[in-house]
Amino acid sequence: MDLFDAIASRRSCRQFTDEPVTDAQIEQILRAAMAAPSAGNEQPWQFIVVRDRAQLARIPKASPYAAMAKQAAVAIAICGDSSLEKYPGFWSQDCCLAGMNVLLAAQALGLGAVWTAAWPMQDRVEKLSALFGLPPHVIPLCVIPIGHPQGPGQPEDRYRPERVHADRW
Amino acid sequence: MDLFDAIASRRSCRQFTDEPVTDAQIEQILRAAMAAPSAGNEQPWQFIVVRDRAQLARIPKASPYAAMAKQAAVAIAICGDSSLEKYPGFWSQDCCLAGMNVLLAAQALGLGAVWTAAWPMQDRVEKLSALFGLPPHVIPLCVIPIGHPQGPGQPEDRYRPERVHADRW
Repeated sequence: MDLFDAIASRRSCRQFTDEPVTDAQIEQILRAAMAAPSAGNEQPWQFIVVRDRAQLARIPKASPYAAMAKQAAVAIAICGDSSLEKYPGFWSQDCCLAGMNVLLAAQALGLGAVWTAAWPMQDRVEKLSALFGLPPHVIPLCVIPIGHPQGPGQPEDRYRPERVHADRW
Repeated sequence: MDLFDAIASRRSCRQFTDEPVTDAQIEQILRAAMAAPSAGNEQPWQFIVVRDRAQLARIPKASPYAAMAKQAAVAIAICGDSSLEKYPGFWSQDCCLAGMNVLLAAQALGLGAVWTAAWPMQDRVEKLSALFGLPPHVIPLCVIPIGHPQGPGQPEDRYRPERVHADRW
């Protein structure tokens, strides 16, 4: 899929069919994630790829806006690993860039995805950390449920020229 | 350009020719940025698009790792506007997702780009805020110089299967 088509057509998808997502698709999504730039190329990310249905069903208990994980073929939790940080304070930015690539890769594969936030909401961080058995230096940034969409997303034109400033404010 | 090709071929570009970047290209990049998802669709971003050569030359004085801005056709500063935040704590994540789209859009247009960080480094935030005349509620996250690359980037395979964990850590 053309890059600009993927960006323009992508919307958060919260309803999935029960069609499976293949191992090859998941690897392609993870390869896209890890191709993101990071501060000094530190790549401070870890990925929990949840396909076990019982584990998927537990995610909403840890993150209340992630109810659709129960229905998704897979959910990818993107976590920052502070033991891999060379530039303190940048793990969340690095992991966000990887996460945008996850959303776009899913879109280009004809899948739907939605970013459900965890960090910096301490309650979600603690419950997801417990669910995934994360060591203390690994912090869940978000959980992205992915599956085949029940219907096409409605593209939305979000361009706002008033947010663009020439040379200075 | 195919989405996966754009993601796989993109590298940080720090050397530019003096070929101009057109208004249409800049608008396409900004449209891609603003198509990013954000917390509750809050879209808390503002963009300073610097094309004035004198202003471009001042950027490295505010942000020491942005020396290539002097040579770039354009630099886009992505800023978070806390007055637009509906979900406190998420503006930086939202702006990061917009920024990944900027990098990919530049790549798909045959341009080169590089993320130079500002926030949370207070010294850079203060100096860039002064340079751009930002009001206190607008915080510069990063400056992305963009131009025609002097040479092709060398793709790097960053896939690390050991960063992928099945169902739990």
